[in-house]
Amino acid sequence: MPTLVLIRHGQSAWNLENRFTGWWDVDVTEKGAEEARAAGRLMKAKGLDFDQCYTSVQTRAIKTLNLALEEMGRLWLPVEKDWHLNERHYGGLTGLDKAETAARHGDAQVKIWRRSFDIPPPVLEAGSEFDLSKDRRYAGIPIPSTESLKDTIARVLPYWDAKIAPDLKAGKRVLISAHGNSLRALVKHLSNIPDDEITELEIPTGQPIVYDLADDLGAIDRYYLSER
Amino acid sequence: MPTLVLIRHGQSAWNLENRFTGWWDVDVTEKGAEEARAAGRLMKAKGLDFDQCYTSVQTRAIKTLNLALEEMGRLWLPVEKDWHLNERHYGGLTGLDKAETAARHGDAQVKIWRRSFDIPPPVLEAGSEFDLSKDRRYAGIPIPSTESLKDTIARVLPYWDAKIAPDLKAGKRVLISAHGNSLRALVKHLSNIPDDEITELEIPTGQPIVYDLADDLGAIDRYYLSER
Repeated sequence: MPTLVLIRHGQSAWNLENRFTGWWDVDVTEKGAEEARAAGRLMKAKGLDFDQCYTSVQTRAIKTLNLALEEMGRLWLPVEKDWHLNERHYGGLTGLDKAETAARHGDAQVKIWRRSFDIPPPVLEAGSEFDLSKDRRYAGIPIPSTESLKDTIARVLPYWDAKIAPDLKAGKRVLISAHGNSLRALVKHLSNIPDDEITELEIPTGQPIVYDLADDLGAIDRYYLSER
Repeated sequence: MPTLVLIRHGQSAWNLENRFTGWWDVDVTEKGAEEARAAGRLMKAKGLDFDQCYTSVQTRAIKTLNLALEEMGRLWLPVEKDWHLNERHYGGLTGLDKAETAARHGDAQVKIWRRSFDIPPPVLEAGSEFDLSKDRRYAGIPIPSTESLKDTIARVLPYWDAKIAPDLKAGKRVLISAHGNSLRALVKHLSNIPDDEITELEIPTGQPIVYDLADDLGAIDRYYLSER
């Protein structure tokens, strides 16, 4: 049975400060690092093992993966890092405090930006301190100026189809360390969750989510590893 | 000009205990981790940057790479991990204390095992506690039972030719985190060092060694980054 485990990065500095992060490269906190290590210990204790790992090109997801793999004695596993698994790009909200933003634009507007399926936040202005167009890691990549969840899904799924699904079909056990919204994209696809429900699905940090999959990669079961 | 940097892993627990390590998967010490971080800070301060990283499948080299990349803000770089870059396999000496081994077999014999070019130590007995034949990371791989430096070179260079040299010729800047003897193999090849001299070349832990290379990958210059 193909095995897939998803893990959202441990707490980041901006999770803690309650700021919109998106593509900005914020590190995990010490609590987040410990969440990652605990996830690795849990996966090892439950006998999970992997053949291939995937992560984004964002430090918080990569470090979460590395710390979990270290606890599992599996730092030697192959890891592919790709921007398609990055967090949703929060556009002009990047770097803003969520409470301040609600005070300025109203709770209703912020709720639309955060929780609507297909309405993106305002674009990130070119030249903003959070503009990534000079970041070498994104050279040659179509950096979004903002994304709705629908936009995020539209770039995550082709990568799933091209790279991850073939590995699973070839019998590889796959671990993906990524972000709240890039993981929502995968969960929506695998568990067939409607547009208006997926935006409400909370993916907790540092909690391995296990998918038991059929050979055609249809989901047989999905559960938090900590609950089994 | 193609740029290549070699770095030997930071101090390991068995470097510290003065035991033969080889393919046994020993972690870095806290001092070794700090050596790795310092190497990353030095490379960043000197303006070095990379496009592709290579390392062995041994924890001490992978962690050294990860810690250095983190200091450089380059955790997102692609990393290929391959057993061809592993340390020389020390056969039946694996796990033994170097002083005890000298007391038992004599300094002259140990010097031959450690410093001859083509005489391997005794083989590691099957079923030894250091037997790696059940280690999943080496499934399908011709695990040596012992290696001379010549044997190590004979498996490092085909990997260099197949994977690393093409990257350099394509203009990629390459960082390799590996081991005393797998790096000796590369230095011997690049700097054309005779058999009887390479065994005496000490490669210090955590010190980035820079190669400026011609387009045909002939060595123009080799130096410790800390000395420039």
